[in-house]
Amino acid sequence: MEYWFYEEHTENVRWGLRIKNEIAHVKSDFQDIHLFETYDFGKTLVIDGTIQTTERDEFIYHEMIVHPPMLTHPSPRKILIIGGGDGGAAREVLKHDPQEVIVVDIDSAVIELSKKHMKFLSKAYSDDRVKIVVGDGIEYVKKHDGFDVIIIDSTDPVGPAEGLFKKEFYDALKKSLNDGGIISQQCGTPFYHPEELKNAYDLLSKIFKFVKPYLAHIPTYPSGMWSFVMASDDELKLRRVPEFETKYFTEELYYSSMSLPKFIKEYCHCNGDK
Amino acid sequence: MEYWFYEEHTENVRWGLRIKNEIAHVKSDFQDIHLFETYDFGKTLVIDGTIQTTERDEFIYHEMIVHPPMLTHPSPRKILIIGGGDGGAAREVLKHDPQEVIVVDIDSAVIELSKKHMKFLSKAYSDDRVKIVVGDGIEYVKKHDGFDVIIIDSTDPVGPAEGLFKKEFYDALKKSLNDGGIISQQCGTPFYHPEELKNAYDLLSKIFKFVKPYLAHIPTYPSGMWSFVMASDDELKLRRVPEFETKYFTEELYYSSMSLPKFIKEYCHCNGDK
Repeated sequence: MEYWFYEEHTENVRWGLRIKNEIAHVKSDFQDIHLFETYDFGKTLVIDGTIQTTERDEFIYHEMIVHPPMLTHPSPRKILIIGGGDGGAAREVLKHDPQEVIVVDIDSAVIELSKKHMKFLSKAYSDDRVKIVVGDGIEYVKKHDGFDVIIIDSTDPVGPAEGLFKKEFYDALKKSLNDGGIISQQCGTPFYHPEELKNAYDLLSKIFKFVKPYLAHIPTYPSGMWSFVMASDDELKLRRVPEFETKYFTEELYYSSMSLPKFIKEYCHCNGDK
Repeated sequence: MEYWFYEEHTENVRWGLRIKNEIAHVKSDFQDIHLFETYDFGKTLVIDGTIQTTERDEFIYHEMIVHPPMLTHPSPRKILIIGGGDGGAAREVLKHDPQEVIVVDIDSAVIELSKKHMKFLSKAYSDDRVKIVVGDGIEYVKKHDGFDVIIIDSTDPVGPAEGLFKKEFYDALKKSLNDGGIISQQCGTPFYHPEELKNAYDLLSKIFKFVKPYLAHIPTYPSGMWSFVMASDDELKLRRVPEFETKYFTEELYYSSMSLPKFIKEYCHCNGDK
């Protein structure tokens, strides 16, 4: 007997992973969370039917949401991660030797599952510089400031993460950043949902002087073509070189990941004018 | 009742497309060929269970296998395409205004299906400069020469295309090129099968002075992370700018598509030394 998990990428496209067993299934106050042991991708975290992270390819997402903004800042000390309860983004942030890393996730169930079953992600939590806050990232940002880099590592803009893609939130982000501060955010697949990147790019462009979308190849996400965006009032350029281990990110990729396919550039009207 | 086609990416990973109907099913002397009309990807050509091309995203593959080598050559006149019976690569080659384009595909069934059902690919065949040869690409290359660019647009290196990834073939390619000639070849997904790119890179490096792998995001291919390689005895640099319409390729992507993720660079030992 074979067991498969299928993610519906659209109503007409689906992707299946054969699973060995279900490690955990938690219905939290916010989300329906499955953790599977799979044959090809190891431990696989699924929230509301959508793969969030797998043991095999999580390094791509976490390196790419963290290292570009962190290396844009000359000396990032205080870092805020909104979402990211699994700890993967915090793990990458620690490679930059920051003073303080605050992870604000609305769902304690994700944090607990990761601590218990996904040490490859949650090992960051054993570092004293990492502080976990269970709560609403939007409210947190309104009440705290002094951040050099803010990383918005959320689910897609439906459900609990919807407010993280709105102008009110971006305005609050800007106020909570130090001068020269930088944000990064995951913006979904521009192949199936270019409107997500366009929306983030358009709103951020009204608030920040410099905004840059960039891409990574993430095999377990729909279409494999995944977008992020960085924004800052200082120029977005590489200010430090990576002096730590990576498996995906390279110094070259800092700039080359910003070379967007033509159909995305045109749709988003993001031709390097920002 | 819903009908789905599933491609097995590995024995533990599969990708499904909902189909409207089967347009054709042909068992040729070489391959088992299905042409489906799908909901999200339009016409979808499947050979031996593997998606070859879809109406929605074929532009990515065809632009990326053609424009990098063609723009590397200062004035490509005589072009050979091995495989590519659907006509998509020939369509892109014509944008460079060549004198002669020869398509050598072993399977006339692919050519006929494309002519009948996939005009968006086969429209190149109505151009007098395009000549179709039904036959073995390896034998053809051994008997013909004078090519400026040779594009190897084949299926993966199992079945009929196996010989297109061997040293004997690459030696023959080199002899059939004019001075300054360039080849490009699709090399599969380096996420699931890095050995395919490594094998091509290693063999080509023994024969050509300059060899460069590069990547594209192709949603309907396994993992979405797809590799190609260019090789030449002249330096691989952009010698002309694209003065034609594209939907994926841009001048920037010529170089940025060569920035490989670290795990691929390391596995392939292709750190720009060639």
